Amino acid sequence: MQIITSRDNPNVKRIAKLAKRDQARAEGVILLEGTRLCEDALASGQVVTEVIVSEEKVSWAKEFTPNIEPLVLSSNVFSKISQTVNPQGVAIVIKEPDVQADIPVSADGKDIYVVLENTRDPGNLGTIIRMADAFGLSAVIVSPTTCDPFNDKVIRATMGSIWHIPVVRKTMDECFSFFEKKGIDTLAMHLKGNELGAGDLKLPCAYFIGNEGDGLTDVTTSRCSRLVKIPMKGKAESLNAAVAASVIGYELSKLL
Amino acid sequence: MQIITSRDNPNVKRIAKLAKRDQARAEGVILLEGTRLCEDALASGQVVTEVIVSEEKVSWAKEFTPNIEPLVLSSNVFSKISQTVNPQGVAIVIKEPDVQADIPVSADGKDIYVVLENTRDPGNLGTIIRMADAFGLSAVIVSPTTCDPFNDKVIRATMGSIWHIPVVRKTMDECFSFFEKKGIDTLAMHLKGNELGAGDLKLPCAYFIGNEGDGLTDVTTSRCSRLVKIPMKGKAESLNAAVAASVIGYELSKLL
Repeated sequence: MQIITSRDNPNVKRIAKLAKRDQARAEGVILLEGTRLCEDALASGQVVTEVIVSEEKVSWAKEFTPNIEPLVLSSNVFSKISQTVNPQGVAIVIKEPDVQADIPVSADGKDIYVVLENTRDPGNLGTIIRMADAFGLSAVIVSPTTCDPFNDKVIRATMGSIWHIPVVRKTMDECFSFFEKKGIDTLAMHLKGNELGAGDLKLPCAYFIGNEGDGLTDVTTSRCSRLVKIPMKGKAESLNAAVAASVIGYELSKLL
Repeated sequence: MQIITSRDNPNVKRIAKLAKRDQARAEGVILLEGTRLCEDALASGQVVTEVIVSEEKVSWAKEFTPNIEPLVLSSNVFSKISQTVNPQGVAIVIKEPDVQADIPVSADGKDIYVVLENTRDPGNLGTIIRMADAFGLSAVIVSPTTCDPFNDKVIRATMGSIWHIPVVRKTMDECFSFFEKKGIDTLAMHLKGNELGAGDLKLPCAYFIGNEGDGLTDVTTSRCSRLVKIPMKGKAESLNAAVAASVIGYELSKLL
């Protein structure tokens, strides 16, 4: 077993580059660091292309990625390329899931889709993906302007759900032409919408959540079948985007 | 009007200290910076003790805090004490709301309380306070181990709701003795709980949300009247703490 002790080693340089998300995305891969993140991805069957461990964590690689020869770094070199304050000495490179895939359709036709137009906060996006996985939604659809779903903060906030539910990137045009063709109800979550009441929802359904500050664009709002809002009996005039998405996701999941 | 041009001015030094939350808390005040945060607090009638503006923002002080003589700093000095990347030149010091206040009780007895045991993430706490305000809850009760509700990140995430709904800090002992005395239903949100069904909820009600990683402590769980969980038809085994708190808050608000 060779332990790399130089930061200037070409393999180390290459891995360090992938820590920059733009670089990794350009190569169609994701660099994951830390036992929790790596083990979640491995458990869900992601395609691993490289394994990087510190010299103390060779046993981890043997246990979790027995079929791949790991790149073993001295603790010092691992720390230098690590993105975390207390490196756990474990990282993997996986192939990026295909965000260009088709919008999935389930056999029973009871699909629920959450469509995010221009969600900017990685924590919100991650929380929505986690919620969508918990409530049995068919997919999370993100607009081209929504933040990168494989951003480290998003992945952490999903608590593993990023690997369990399809996340696809579509333009609003692509969404509406798909939903119209399939006859799927489209709800704009909008502060000017009608308060959601019992019996107002049906499946299949796609609901649209806008940007944290600005809400949905007028164009998208106008293309939805209906404008709805969550009844709020208190004083705050709006909810956090992830909370709004979750309340509707929860109500729709009652129909599954 | 005197413009302070030195970072070493004693007033500037004093304000700079208050940017350290520990220091401000020790003095029972909160330093708020930026137009949105300051204007929200002013609109809700918070008690202002000091106003600090950059030389360009004297007109802001005249408009929003006409009865207080502002401390006017040169833009350069304001930038030096600012906690933000692009300072807006506006800050105020307000008295900290009383977190030791009694748990409020409404006249109609239809109270909803969310009790947070050891919530660590400021974003989650802020999102829960905002949700509680939107759904008409009576108060947000935080344990002594829950993060500081007047932390800058919490305040930002509440979008002004921190000034609209009582946030009180109580030990779990204080909570249970109050709820027991008042005959208030206590729900532990717990992954081992019964799935919440229609008609399972009644008012008044207090529901307990645990720490993001560990959930509720066993002691708190055992003292609640019932253990409940949100039905999840998908694969994720749990929800973000703020999402879980919001779904229950939403269901309870239907009974208001």
